[in-house]
Amino acid sequence: MTWEEYQILHRQALEILHMEWPQFFNGLQVHKVTETWQDDVTQIPAIIDHTALKPDTTAYIIEQLCREAIKYKFYSVCVAPCWVELAASILRGQKVKVCTVIGFPHGNTLKQVKVYEAAEAATIGADELDMVINIGALKSRKLKLVFEEITAVRETIGSKPILKVILETSTLDNVEKIIGSLIAIRAGANFVKTSTGFTGGGATVSDVRLLRWTVGGKVGVKASGGIRDLETALTMVRAGANRLGTSSGVVIAREFFNKKGASL
Amino acid sequence: MTWEEYQILHRQALEILHMEWPQFFNGLQVHKVTETWQDDVTQIPAIIDHTALKPDTTAYIIEQLCREAIKYKFYSVCVAPCWVELAASILRGQKVKVCTVIGFPHGNTLKQVKVYEAAEAATIGADELDMVINIGALKSRKLKLVFEEITAVRETIGSKPILKVILETSTLDNVEKIIGSLIAIRAGANFVKTSTGFTGGGATVSDVRLLRWTVGGKVGVKASGGIRDLETALTMVRAGANRLGTSSGVVIAREFFNKKGASL
Repeated sequence: MTWEEYQILHRQALEILHMEWPQFFNGLQVHKVTETWQDDVTQIPAIIDHTALKPDTTAYIIEQLCREAIKYKFYSVCVAPCWVELAASILRGQKVKVCTVIGFPHGNTLKQVKVYEAAEAATIGADELDMVINIGALKSRKLKLVFEEITAVRETIGSKPILKVILETSTLDNVEKIIGSLIAIRAGANFVKTSTGFTGGGATVSDVRLLRWTVGGKVGVKASGGIRDLETALTMVRAGANRLGTSSGVVIAREFFNKKGASL
Repeated sequence: MTWEEYQILHRQALEILHMEWPQFFNGLQVHKVTETWQDDVTQIPAIIDHTALKPDTTAYIIEQLCREAIKYKFYSVCVAPCWVELAASILRGQKVKVCTVIGFPHGNTLKQVKVYEAAEAATIGADELDMVINIGALKSRKLKLVFEEITAVRETIGSKPILKVILETSTLDNVEKIIGSLIAIRAGANFVKTSTGFTGGGATVSDVRLLRWTVGGKVGVKASGGIRDLETALTMVRAGANRLGTSSGVVIAREFFNKKGASL
């Protein structure tokens, strides 16, 4: 996708938002999109959310994940809510953060359940929350619901926990990706994130670039799903990602330290 | 698997339960397994949970699903929590029940979140709840947690809503399937259910038979995942299923009515 093609899609997204939900624009400074993204990432491991979200993940795997995260200085471990307490207890006194997931991986539970899950997860030690948008609501043009869910989570957890909004880009068309991102920013998300890793495909270069173009420089972009080696990780960063979600963190970190100074 | 092979596995399951959590047996009448299962299902459509759980399901698809369920006299529609209100409003005054899912599809959220989600879903109109067990806890031998989650949901919703416990059989070994089933029965589940349809494989004949042998005649067995035609549906019933979860309900119902009197 070229910059010119993107601008046409961006305009279409604004038109749909205006048509379906004019109040969205009340008092809104619509972000002026900028063509370039200056990354300053030099340490790939330091932007990795070291992830183990499969449903059959055991306590043993979580303990191993935490030890690896300390060893390779990953940004965080990303675990399901039922493992947050265990991870937080292992990582006490360490720099590694605890990230968890909300409404994961389908995003189609009730708004109040997402809010409650987020509040409970933050209470027991989650520093970062990756919540899945209501994809079906976005596709059904119930845009206000999409917005209200994120806003309600943001208001409940307060400003401290980092809130990432998972769009599940593989299920959306390009205009929907832009609409989802604009709603997430407006609702107070700190990051938009491409994928859960469980539905359809993962992060693509063109999706990461599209999200970065949409959110500009003030909101983060987390690329996730299918990032299994250093080359892919670097490609995602060059496209605009400043956080990476992967279960292949150890492989990537070893490659990185072997090629010390791997150029971005 | 033969009946003799099953009995060895059943004994192993009881041994693990006794070792990891002796209290499980306090006051428990361990179900005496019986080799045969007499089904009395003659109307396949009447035991189908007509299902649309994909994360990109739209309001339009839910409306269509409900109309189809009325037309083909399915037992219920099975929809994500965010669509329960819509489905319940369309089905008001109809015989078709509303079924929804809890902790779906990974089962790895917090116990209290499953309880809250179940309570909210029942309040807004769900007649049946299909909850996913904590698979990782079962595999980590935290059997008490697996039990407490189901018990807590059962106690919160009361005795009226039907509670089905999804084991996600494709992630479990045979002994774990038996342990999960025994815990589910003890905790007050009305059904054990094979699969979410989103992780690994779906229902298999041998899994359905194993679940039926384990739960006996008083608890239901729901086969789900991969049931896409009448022949497969009939095979599952013959193996011991008395409820079927499928998104191919219309195809199966048409086949059924075309071959009126399809023999079981």
